[in-house]
Amino acid sequence: MRPTMKDVASAAGVALKTVSRVVNGEPGVHPATAERVRTAIDRLGYSRNESARVLRSGRTATIGLVIEDVADPFYSGLSRAVEEVVIGHGCLLLSGSSGEEPGRERELVETFCARRVDGLIVVPAGEDHTYLRSELEAGTPVVFADRPPGAGLDVDTVLADNAAGAEQAVRHLLGHGHHRIAFLGDDPAIFTAAERLRGYRETLGGLFDERLVSMRAPELETVRADLTRMFALDQPPTALFTGNGRYTVTALRALRGRRVALVGFDDFELADLLDPGVTVVAQDPSWMGRVAAELLFRRLRGDSGPSEHIQLPVRLIGRGSGEMSPYD
Amino acid sequence: MRPTMKDVASAAGVALKTVSRVVNGEPGVHPATAERVRTAIDRLGYSRNESARVLRSGRTATIGLVIEDVADPFYSGLSRAVEEVVIGHGCLLLSGSSGEEPGRERELVETFCARRVDGLIVVPAGEDHTYLRSELEAGTPVVFADRPPGAGLDVDTVLADNAAGAEQAVRHLLGHGHHRIAFLGDDPAIFTAAERLRGYRETLGGLFDERLVSMRAPELETVRADLTRMFALDQPPTALFTGNGRYTVTALRALRGRRVALVGFDDFELADLLDPGVTVVAQDPSWMGRVAAELLFRRLRGDSGPSEHIQLPVRLIGRGSGEMSPYD
Repeated sequence: MRPTMKDVASAAGVALKTVSRVVNGEPGVHPATAERVRTAIDRLGYSRNESARVLRSGRTATIGLVIEDVADPFYSGLSRAVEEVVIGHGCLLLSGSSGEEPGRERELVETFCARRVDGLIVVPAGEDHTYLRSELEAGTPVVFADRPPGAGLDVDTVLADNAAGAEQAVRHLLGHGHHRIAFLGDDPAIFTAAERLRGYRETLGGLFDERLVSMRAPELETVRADLTRMFALDQPPTALFTGNGRYTVTALRALRGRRVALVGFDDFELADLLDPGVTVVAQDPSWMGRVAAELLFRRLRGDSGPSEHIQLPVRLIGRGSGEMSPYD
Repeated sequence: MRPTMKDVASAAGVALKTVSRVVNGEPGVHPATAERVRTAIDRLGYSRNESARVLRSGRTATIGLVIEDVADPFYSGLSRAVEEVVIGHGCLLLSGSSGEEPGRERELVETFCARRVDGLIVVPAGEDHTYLRSELEAGTPVVFADRPPGAGLDVDTVLADNAAGAEQAVRHLLGHGHHRIAFLGDDPAIFTAAERLRGYRETLGGLFDERLVSMRAPELETVRADLTRMFALDQPPTALFTGNGRYTVTALRALRGRRVALVGFDDFELADLLDPGVTVVAQDPSWMGRVAAELLFRRLRGDSGPSEHIQLPVRLIGRGSGEMSPYD
């Protein structure tokens, strides 16, 4: 069905090699002949098969991106920024969501590699990335974003300063007079959750109380149960620190009506329209995506320096919920 | 650098054809020999180059998706659903955001076609899709989602029932006693915006007043100016109908503090946590993505029936903002 270069050649009444020269912009074709070839191309609707070119050049102009979930606004913001950089370099983006499953992460990465992507950006779900070693040895650059790779893999990373962000949140709440600050965070097997817990714990020091900590996936029912348990304590929390955007939204839903100070990790679209406005420690997912993609293209251009470990600062945005006193 | 099939053959001490048989799962290799080949594959870190296989089979197991903006929650929800179906069929997804620019839409589609995607799902930014004709004639199935193609292209479409959604919104507000209902919607060159305007206008009938309509991209400053102008009228609006999720959020921000009834097109994550909760006409972006992708794979399996035009129903979710009376 699809017209081939041969069809173009016979329609234009020229040799196959002539069509190939025109299509590939090579010299040595008379302008009038080139024009005849182009007319035949337009009339037949011929388009070059890039797969063939890829095999010859050894480059596919394709980048692979593995994230956790494109429907999560943090990762869709990161994706869009990666996409901008990739397209700006004349490349295309293959992307997929791991859904926090290490097996799916690996499957996506291996499929991308089998398609010979020129480079990879990975937000890992798993902790073992030895499966990437042969790909790295073959010269494919890989940048890990948001979370580092498992032990033994020396690659570029772009992470947020999670522990410092948690420190800012806790210091802010301490500064507003809170001593009973609960932490609700995701599964501690997730790097960012563990780092934020570490920042929280180290900042609280002697005020740390493990009864005020819950670390598991943010489901409305479990968050509700955890909060009920904590508020029933002799010394209940007067403030909450929630470990990511999903957690903040889930906690707000579970808290409904109850006034308690709150600082969330990650900004989210309507944080300023809620009452009170939600105080957050904001990271910038677009920035992270851009930095990771630009680092990857620097590697593709031949920068073979030692692996880089970029840590992006985060900042606290006060909007009301984090500025309530324990007596409000 | 990267090990080839030849390297595997010499490492295992077998013929190239034997390695090829093992890699492609073909019969005729002694189990012990196959084991030796697999050991060599693991040791060398050989992985098959899928690009070569693609050229032989004529199928790339790749689907192209063009959306407006992956950072918009409507499109990231749609993307995730398309991705699930695509990966479930053992294929990969190339995707890109047009940013509402027809030139970029075309560029993405043409690049995807040059990579020989097996099929395309397009949320169009432009109105002229004649450039797709040769691709369609070559047998590549294309499904348009969210918005139809320009004139003269007979392809499958999956759209929401936009006009009926607008009718539901306006009837709901009329039912709560409103006669002055403003409409703030996106550029009417966008199909969904024009359809929602049509539903609004037809439902209002004699109550329609063009001074209560503004159609342009949702920017905070212009929305603020439009609302100021409308509220200064002799008979100001007592209710707003906002034309999409971005518009609703922008209008809420611009309205800050002013109590006015509101129904928005599109649901959004925190609609229930605002005060009052935001009444919306909800579409289901995941459903739209799933239906579009499943239709595409039906075509890829050989269904060559006439093009289908699927219209997905929408539903009104009352949460408070749309149930206020003109006297509140």
